[in-house]
Amino acid sequence: MSETPYQSLEARFRRLGALREALAILHWDSATMMPEGAASARAEQTAELKLVCHELLADAALPDLFAGAETDRGLDAWQGANLREMRREFLHANAVPADLVGAFSKACSACEMEWRRARPANDFSGIRPSLQRVLDLAREVGAAKAAKLGTTPYDALLDQFEPGGSAAAIDRIFAPLIKVLPSLIAEVLAAQQKRPAPVAPAGPFPIEAQRRAGRMMMEKLGFEFDHGRLDISLHPFCGGTPDDVRITTRYDEADFARALMGVLHETGHALYERGLPVAWRRQPVGEARGMSVHESQSLLMEMQLCRSRAFLDFAVPILRDCFGGSGAAWEAENLYRLGTKVRRSFIRVDADEVTYPAHVILRYRLERAMIAGDLALKDLPAAWNDGMKELLGVAPPDDRQGCLQDIHWYDGGFGYFPTYTLGAMTAAQLFDAAKRDKNVSAGIARGDFKPLLGWLRRNVHGLASSLPTAELLTQATGKPLDSAVFEAHLRARYLAA
Amino acid sequence: MSETPYQSLEARFRRLGALREALAILHWDSATMMPEGAASARAEQTAELKLVCHELLADAALPDLFAGAETDRGLDAWQGANLREMRREFLHANAVPADLVGAFSKACSACEMEWRRARPANDFSGIRPSLQRVLDLAREVGAAKAAKLGTTPYDALLDQFEPGGSAAAIDRIFAPLIKVLPSLIAEVLAAQQKRPAPVAPAGPFPIEAQRRAGRMMMEKLGFEFDHGRLDISLHPFCGGTPDDVRITTRYDEADFARALMGVLHETGHALYERGLPVAWRRQPVGEARGMSVHESQSLLMEMQLCRSRAFLDFAVPILRDCFGGSGAAWEAENLYRLGTKVRRSFIRVDADEVTYPAHVILRYRLERAMIAGDLALKDLPAAWNDGMKELLGVAPPDDRQGCLQDIHWYDGGFGYFPTYTLGAMTAAQLFDAAKRDKNVSAGIARGDFKPLLGWLRRNVHGLASSLPTAELLTQATGKPLDSAVFEAHLRARYLAA
Repeated sequence: MSETPYQSLEARFRRLGALREALAILHWDSATMMPEGAASARAEQTAELKLVCHELLADAALPDLFAGAETDRGLDAWQGANLREMRREFLHANAVPADLVGAFSKACSACEMEWRRARPANDFSGIRPSLQRVLDLAREVGAAKAAKLGTTPYDALLDQFEPGGSAAAIDRIFAPLIKVLPSLIAEVLAAQQKRPAPVAPAGPFPIEAQRRAGRMMMEKLGFEFDHGRLDISLHPFCGGTPDDVRITTRYDEADFARALMGVLHETGHALYERGLPVAWRRQPVGEARGMSVHESQSLLMEMQLCRSRAFLDFAVPILRDCFGGSGAAWEAENLYRLGTKVRRSFIRVDADEVTYPAHVILRYRLERAMIAGDLALKDLPAAWNDGMKELLGVAPPDDRQGCLQDIHWYDGGFGYFPTYTLGAMTAAQLFDAAKRDKNVSAGIARGDFKPLLGWLRRNVHGLASSLPTAELLTQATGKPLDSAVFEAHLRARYLAA
Repeated sequence: MSETPYQSLEARFRRLGALREALAILHWDSATMMPEGAASARAEQTAELKLVCHELLADAALPDLFAGAETDRGLDAWQGANLREMRREFLHANAVPADLVGAFSKACSACEMEWRRARPANDFSGIRPSLQRVLDLAREVGAAKAAKLGTTPYDALLDQFEPGGSAAAIDRIFAPLIKVLPSLIAEVLAAQQKRPAPVAPAGPFPIEAQRRAGRMMMEKLGFEFDHGRLDISLHPFCGGTPDDVRITTRYDEADFARALMGVLHETGHALYERGLPVAWRRQPVGEARGMSVHESQSLLMEMQLCRSRAFLDFAVPILRDCFGGSGAAWEAENLYRLGTKVRRSFIRVDADEVTYPAHVILRYRLERAMIAGDLALKDLPAAWNDGMKELLGVAPPDDRQGCLQDIHWYDGGFGYFPTYTLGAMTAAQLFDAAKRDKNVSAGIARGDFKPLLGWLRRNVHGLASSLPTAELLTQATGKPLDSAVFEAHLRARYLAA
């Protein structure tokens, strides 16, 4: 029997998937192992691999195969979802003319390089022309994709990270949070002031001990070291492939918590990748559902589970053992207060769970306005500072701690920011639902996280991209994303006596 | 102006070169970093990349491009050589029907897997059917390639590793050595007996100290750590790419010399790769000239330079410092005798410089007979033992220490073995010529190896594949490969008072 159009599409996407796995390993290598002098050779290798991937997606035979597969009545639910995801990838890959793709990619590289100088130099006006070029081209890319996807330009950019996402839906979800956030932050800070200030354990904390503590916790959460690694890189990330998940961290001998919480965060990402369905490896439907669900998995581990009071009862003996710690600073209650300390700050990546959404909402508003053409770059610093004042009550003294702090826009990443807070909300809602399963909550209470992982495997990881995000969440928790659950979590953790 | 056929070929081979570099990094990763559970996913990634490479070489447009390029009168010498090497690659890639390529590759994988069991089990008769299948298919591959290259089947297989090599030329080169080798070995052993036996320094030698010593020596020889790495793998190798040369070793805490000499050997390979001409990166003419020249570079460093008495005067203080060694065992003269100890042994990879050629000549004879159909596999063990007796004066007690010891044939590698001894001879001849340059010899005498590296860059590395091997050697040393230089080296080192 000859291949059906659907089977032929699967075969092509399997090739694409294998090449992307190769790219993922090369990317990990670049960040962890590659000697500096190899950078330009590595750029040639990855450019060539990306070109081969692009050629697979731009193949003139694909439109007919899609047309044939759409009429195939024999596809089951997963195959149908796979076809939907294949088409989404195909649209994104072919919506933008090749010369625009090239110009955008070049502009992003150039601007990102310049950002590395401009940020420490606090030089927004110096980088503005480069950022303008990136923004102009991002708007063109958004318009081109919007025409194919039938959305607005911003939603088309968002769709790259958050399949099916829309600004309208995000506005609806964020609105109640925006309303309560400023007063909630004030309440939390007031409540915190009434409690004794936590004490930081005294270092130094040798890197080897930190690595050991990280690995022990990773294994406890379910990370399989015969299918993954923990290494060091300048910017921590989760990379590799579902069968070979590679996370990285960066150690600071003066502070063990930063690397450790980073490791637990990346472990959440890693467990998601590792739990993707084996039967759908290297097919679009077998991939993670998008950035908000991905971030929900890292934040569920880091923020929901590992910063909980219950987790610390389990973790503290391990930490004391690894670091030889003793005394008041090493009491679970103290470490809990330390890990849930809230402060108004300028830098997003250092922000706590309560203030983080304010940082994200600001960026979401600004990037939408920039893409819509409603905010000129010359007005960005002032708009940034006004927004910080409104949402967080503080404004940065300079752009280095303001609109220059994040790489995203300078690297062309418009439409990414909202996924952080969508992820935080999704994490709260999933964890809340998971804990309603008695096995999960009993497991957590005794320091056994296998039931939690099992629940996530069944309700999130194993479903990959088979369902639209809202449906996935509804099936797992009984309702679509609802900021009330996140708000309730914050109130319970930060305002309960 | 539109692209000429030659330029179009260059563009295609540049793509191929970039993808092969990606494959090289993935191969290194598999051997050093990859967690065990990722093996089958990695196999999918590399199979897909190899398929893309094959498609580039099998492109129907290539024959016309070659035909067009052959008539291009504007090509300079390097471009002409590049065209010659491109054609060689093209012929090898397309000479064998796809189903035979697939069957051979499968048979090799299966037999190699079985060899991992059969070797320790000393079970030649058990693996014989698998080896028979590999041999049958290797003969078919040889015949198919011979038809395209206009050579004998054995020469066609040899050409994969030794471009332009032939059994006739090898016979001519090996003949004088075969004649003197048995008596030379006897003389060396007798001379050695008259000297006091060397003493092995007492361990343990911590891995970190071994790594430090290795890295110091690598840097002294010219290895650039911003363009390469030293790591650990089960089987030491030199991998990566010219801009990112990655060598590996394996440490034994009881014996520092084994890892160290291995590191110096791989450093020789690495310096060759690193010295290939930048202007011809990712083009066939810019690649190393073949396995005998490659092996000559590793053996020139390991055997010619680093096992010399002069080198030890420089190395011993470093070794004493790294390992805290002192006393008679750490005298340069003792370490020299230890590093040049000769013994009749069964295992090739453990053999010394004097007996090694006997191991290789045996394998070369046997594989030629097997490919010619003159030696049946059932007769291989007896033929092996007879040959050992004749060439080396000892026969192994079992096949584990005999015809089962090397992976090569079981993995389909026929035509590779002679390059080891061609490499040893080439190393002797190049080192002899290099030392006639006063800067080189004066440098070596004071522990400065930059002039030697400079000589190799000019006479070998920088020429890449621009010249046929014999011409390269003639240009560098004044004559084609001549075993008399190698013999003179052995006599000088092992028989001089």
